[in-house]
Amino acid sequence: MSFDMLQEKILAFRNPTVAGLDPKPEYVPEHIRKAVYAQYGETLQGAAEAIYQFNCGLIDALRDIVPAVKPQSAYYERLGWRGMEVMERTIRYAHEKGMYVIADIKRGDIGSTAAAYADGWLGETRVGEKSHTVFDADCVTLNGYMGSDSVNPFLEVCKARDKSCFVLVKTSNPGSGELQNIAAGEGSTVYGVMASLIEKWGAGTEGKYGYTRVGAVTGATHPKELAEIRAMMPRTFLLVPGYGAQGGTAEDVRHAFHAGGKGAIVNSSRGIICAWQKTGKNGEDYQEAARNAALAMRDDIGRFLDME
Amino acid sequence: MSFDMLQEKILAFRNPTVAGLDPKPEYVPEHIRKAVYAQYGETLQGAAEAIYQFNCGLIDALRDIVPAVKPQSAYYERLGWRGMEVMERTIRYAHEKGMYVIADIKRGDIGSTAAAYADGWLGETRVGEKSHTVFDADCVTLNGYMGSDSVNPFLEVCKARDKSCFVLVKTSNPGSGELQNIAAGEGSTVYGVMASLIEKWGAGTEGKYGYTRVGAVTGATHPKELAEIRAMMPRTFLLVPGYGAQGGTAEDVRHAFHAGGKGAIVNSSRGIICAWQKTGKNGEDYQEAARNAALAMRDDIGRFLDME
Repeated sequence: MSFDMLQEKILAFRNPTVAGLDPKPEYVPEHIRKAVYAQYGETLQGAAEAIYQFNCGLIDALRDIVPAVKPQSAYYERLGWRGMEVMERTIRYAHEKGMYVIADIKRGDIGSTAAAYADGWLGETRVGEKSHTVFDADCVTLNGYMGSDSVNPFLEVCKARDKSCFVLVKTSNPGSGELQNIAAGEGSTVYGVMASLIEKWGAGTEGKYGYTRVGAVTGATHPKELAEIRAMMPRTFLLVPGYGAQGGTAEDVRHAFHAGGKGAIVNSSRGIICAWQKTGKNGEDYQEAARNAALAMRDDIGRFLDME
Repeated sequence: MSFDMLQEKILAFRNPTVAGLDPKPEYVPEHIRKAVYAQYGETLQGAAEAIYQFNCGLIDALRDIVPAVKPQSAYYERLGWRGMEVMERTIRYAHEKGMYVIADIKRGDIGSTAAAYADGWLGETRVGEKSHTVFDADCVTLNGYMGSDSVNPFLEVCKARDKSCFVLVKTSNPGSGELQNIAAGEGSTVYGVMASLIEKWGAGTEGKYGYTRVGAVTGATHPKELAEIRAMMPRTFLLVPGYGAQGGTAEDVRHAFHAGGKGAIVNSSRGIICAWQKTGKNGEDYQEAARNAALAMRDDIGRFLDME
């Protein structure tokens, strides 16, 4: 689905946020873990299965209030192929429940290798005379350090299958400035040059809300840069990590939005999926805790927006 | 294994090259494909199994002349979890045959997410009271756009388990200059700033040949930059893609090496694994063709080196 679909879901739910599904085994409440480990042991298979059950419970609890989920590939890869199998199943389950899925993979490679990633994550993989969808996310995150050769193969698949991508611009981590804030080009910075490239790559793919298929990742923890990037990239949809645990506030992320609360989506991962660890209970309330945290985030961010 | 082990293997084989295992189903010779598809059909499972058999055949053919293999994650991910399962098995098989394994994953993320990737690819993943190795490569490729937060978690695992990584500096693709060659910092370029960061990250991890655990990727297709980077980064081991199909020559890649043919390794993927497509035969000679191509590459590059 394109950003049009995402924007529509956001407006329908009056909620410009995405829940990051970044599960470690220890984030899964004990009652789920115990039952699964009793069957599979403390194995990679056991961890993967526990995470799948946890993800499904979270999706069930969030599907009617949060428009999108963002599974982070690292937490699945660390369980090997069994984790990747659960990533595939999680994406499928989220789709069945009507959620938009951003696969947070931050891939960046060139030519036929970029095309191979695009096949797997957004497109189809050909085997002999047959084609198969694989992960089939709606959207992926990308790293554009290698230039247009690393983004164009994804963009081709996005156009063919009505999908989208986000490319890193200014990330939320403390050390992001080591490269990204270095002065570069004519009066710009490395992230500024990247922002210009992204606007160029996306040009001509604008949808009904005016946003291209090539979005940008800009962290909530750098509000000055966030405001600057919003102004520099008027046609670019923004994915904003760093709210909550990393220190970004609702007042910080307001800079990411256009009028009507359009043009951006804010992520929270642990703030939602680990909310049960702060209720003082045993984790059996994880769905309620995640839902309450998601509603609180929606309302917190909404205070600064003029969503219709 | 650290770069010391890789350097030793290179010197023992008098061969500073690595075979890229970037297999698409159509690169697998027909006799393997036919037999596997007869059993599994033209499915993702069939493609994955065909690729595994092909990889094993290539490893058998190369193990006593080529020190290392470099499986490219994209070609396995495009087959979903079945492909990742074959990536795990391929790494295990290469290790059994004594080869050094560079997992070409170009990951780049921060904090606990970077640590999750490092667990999966180089370290161990904890489930309850138990720890499990997962992909367990010797070395990975990384993208450092996000700064030290994205490299340090890998470096911690590298130190703990005697492993190494390569970070992208100046890549081999035609569009690499769009960001990487922009003027940046004080009289430098974006790739120059990245090179300085890499030398800083690696400092203090030098092994017996003088190279740190944080290597750099620099393409053969930009010989001027390659020579400059070699001079800028005296303690950094270089991974050089772009020889052969992409246009880099033996004369170009000589600039990557220190005296004695030390300090660098040159990759070829399709030039080796697809060599059978150029012999005019039916693919049953794929092992001999790969071996001959690898020997020709070794000798071609060796002409310009003073390896003892």
